[in-house]
Amino acid sequence: MTRKALILTAAAALLAGTVSAQQAIWGVQTIKSPEINSDKSVTFRFSAPEAKSVEVTGDMLPRDTVDTPYGKFPVDGKLALTKGDDGVWSATTSPLAPELYTYNFIVDGLRMPDPNNVFQQRDVISITNLLYIDGDPMIDTYGQHDVAHGTLRSAWYPSEKLGMNRRVTVYTPAGYEASGKNYPVLYLLHGMGGDETAWSELGRTAQIMDNLIAAGKAEPMIVVMPNGNSSQQAAPGFTSAGFVQPTTQLPNVPGDFELAFPDLVKWTDATFRTLPDKKHRAIAGLSMGGMHTYNISKEFPDLADYIGLFSAAIRIGTDNPCEQNTDEKLAALFAAKPALYWIAIGNEDFLLPQNKEYTAKLDAAGYPYEYVETEGGHIWRNWRHYLHDFSQRLFKQE
Amino acid sequence: MTRKALILTAAAALLAGTVSAQQAIWGVQTIKSPEINSDKSVTFRFSAPEAKSVEVTGDMLPRDTVDTPYGKFPVDGKLALTKGDDGVWSATTSPLAPELYTYNFIVDGLRMPDPNNVFQQRDVISITNLLYIDGDPMIDTYGQHDVAHGTLRSAWYPSEKLGMNRRVTVYTPAGYEASGKNYPVLYLLHGMGGDETAWSELGRTAQIMDNLIAAGKAEPMIVVMPNGNSSQQAAPGFTSAGFVQPTTQLPNVPGDFELAFPDLVKWTDATFRTLPDKKHRAIAGLSMGGMHTYNISKEFPDLADYIGLFSAAIRIGTDNPCEQNTDEKLAALFAAKPALYWIAIGNEDFLLPQNKEYTAKLDAAGYPYEYVETEGGHIWRNWRHYLHDFSQRLFKQE
Repeated sequence: MTRKALILTAAAALLAGTVSAQQAIWGVQTIKSPEINSDKSVTFRFSAPEAKSVEVTGDMLPRDTVDTPYGKFPVDGKLALTKGDDGVWSATTSPLAPELYTYNFIVDGLRMPDPNNVFQQRDVISITNLLYIDGDPMIDTYGQHDVAHGTLRSAWYPSEKLGMNRRVTVYTPAGYEASGKNYPVLYLLHGMGGDETAWSELGRTAQIMDNLIAAGKAEPMIVVMPNGNSSQQAAPGFTSAGFVQPTTQLPNVPGDFELAFPDLVKWTDATFRTLPDKKHRAIAGLSMGGMHTYNISKEFPDLADYIGLFSAAIRIGTDNPCEQNTDEKLAALFAAKPALYWIAIGNEDFLLPQNKEYTAKLDAAGYPYEYVETEGGHIWRNWRHYLHDFSQRLFKQE
Repeated sequence: MTRKALILTAAAALLAGTVSAQQAIWGVQTIKSPEINSDKSVTFRFSAPEAKSVEVTGDMLPRDTVDTPYGKFPVDGKLALTKGDDGVWSATTSPLAPELYTYNFIVDGLRMPDPNNVFQQRDVISITNLLYIDGDPMIDTYGQHDVAHGTLRSAWYPSEKLGMNRRVTVYTPAGYEASGKNYPVLYLLHGMGGDETAWSELGRTAQIMDNLIAAGKAEPMIVVMPNGNSSQQAAPGFTSAGFVQPTTQLPNVPGDFELAFPDLVKWTDATFRTLPDKKHRAIAGLSMGGMHTYNISKEFPDLADYIGLFSAAIRIGTDNPCEQNTDEKLAALFAAKPALYWIAIGNEDFLLPQNKEYTAKLDAAGYPYEYVETEGGHIWRNWRHYLHDFSQRLFKQE
């Protein structure tokens, strides 16, 4: 560097944090937050000399309940930070169980991300920081490890029925490019408020599949993660509407996504080296995507041999056109003998009664399925768990 | 829904914003920020009934300067918000020129993102919100439009020389999957503190290329965006080290990235349908990536016919092994007659003196190049601009 450049660089270093007009090449982290201690307790820190209170809230803390007109409702717990002489607030949790947690700070009543932790995720309109504690075989599959990695892409497929090009996230397993082989396909659907980025970002699909495939626990497969909002081309920010804030209030027409599903399958089979038959297709989805899976599987009984309903928002008898002649459609689906019909839900999920109602209906008809009830509510923690378990069941019959 | 589920959903709606243990399906935006008004002024809003001061700061505001021991230094300007009776602070800017801006709030002295704007980007350790004002032909190419879209993927390539698998972002143009054609390749390199996500996220590469290709202004091409830190496998969070906060203090060995570059080219030509010759390759980079481009092009004079130095951190005579025999290497490069040697830099960039020194050296030797000097400093705004201009110059000779 010339002397002048060195001086300017030094000047910039003095101003780190305020010079956002310049590329942030001079930033140095001064506060470590979160810090994972050797006993797996976690220390959170926040610099706010003028603040009156700083709390951390997240799903790594014991839950609180709040009273509502409808009874008590669980919410993330809070932990108060204590102010040090240097104006840095801190607090340390109890030792934490392995999990991928999310948290925020609350500073004088205002919720905000941890400015010392760039790892964040968006869930509809919420942005929360990530905290990953490893040390459990299932949870460890959410992490990035030194195994052969697949490729994750954002592509676009044409839907003639929906009259638009639509964004889709596709995972191809390690070795796909060079192997010349054809692969089975898992279609994986998100919930209300989500989009084609939900499973790869919040669901850690690429990490989970990389790790399970490398360990020989899951078959190498393609995973196709479309946008399940029939009125939407793509995630917020990826349409010509520009940077429009996300909302759950979308003008989706019931049944449109499900009935247009063959357009996606057609594109997938034309674009990737797939095994294009029922025996080598799976479909699963969470919440609204569970409803989509429920509908798509009975609309198209010869589509997929593996069907997964994760905390599914099954609504029997609605005005969704897929709910016309439900009994006949279910009969046709089960007559086609799917290899696996897998239903999973948390024991605190608000959709538990609907799922109980549905399994009772399946029982009454004598249709075979597997039912898994886990701890917890309507949360991503469960959906990663279900992907981990369900994906290992796929494509193992020959 | 059953009655019970409806009641629980209603209860959840009441608690929107606090129920992060549940999927955020009930969130409804109540405050609009930023709001782009019809005259292209922008209103920022922030709810903070207890706060004493709220300011917005960003590159859409007239710049301030701060005094340092080394002289005055430009920083983003600030605009004070005014508190309304409802505890919502607001302020409106002057009409803004088209640009992709970044901003933050400062609340009682604490810098924080806009909680009502989920569109953010990370630049090393800074997270800032995005604000996009359209209406200019160049700036409009940064936006997502209803044109044919390419595919953007995160893949991994093996570098024998660096002894690791490394993450790389690759754009393939619309039609790549079905055309059966072979394409030219642009290698696009990031700066210090960046990684393989920098050009696609901060640089808007997919949008710029989609729009220019659709308009017939750029040739359909593959764009390969590797991680330029030779000591790093991947962006923070995408290595087995876990969620380690980003830093610019990496143990990169000078010359390692440049000398290992053929590993990337080999993988690219083996994995994609490329036109694997000098005439159909370009390489460009910003800041540190400009230095990489400067070095790689003179180490491998037969690699690429198009060479772009964007705000390049050219350091003649350092201990980088690529700087051994620089004059001989430059002579060999220009003897191979590159189709374009393009140098661009801002008139306030701290690297301007080094670039002037380098162009003087090229002038003295009589080597042909193009030089473009734009407004502004060492900023992404310029690098998007340079990609927009440079990419339209590529692969047009036959």
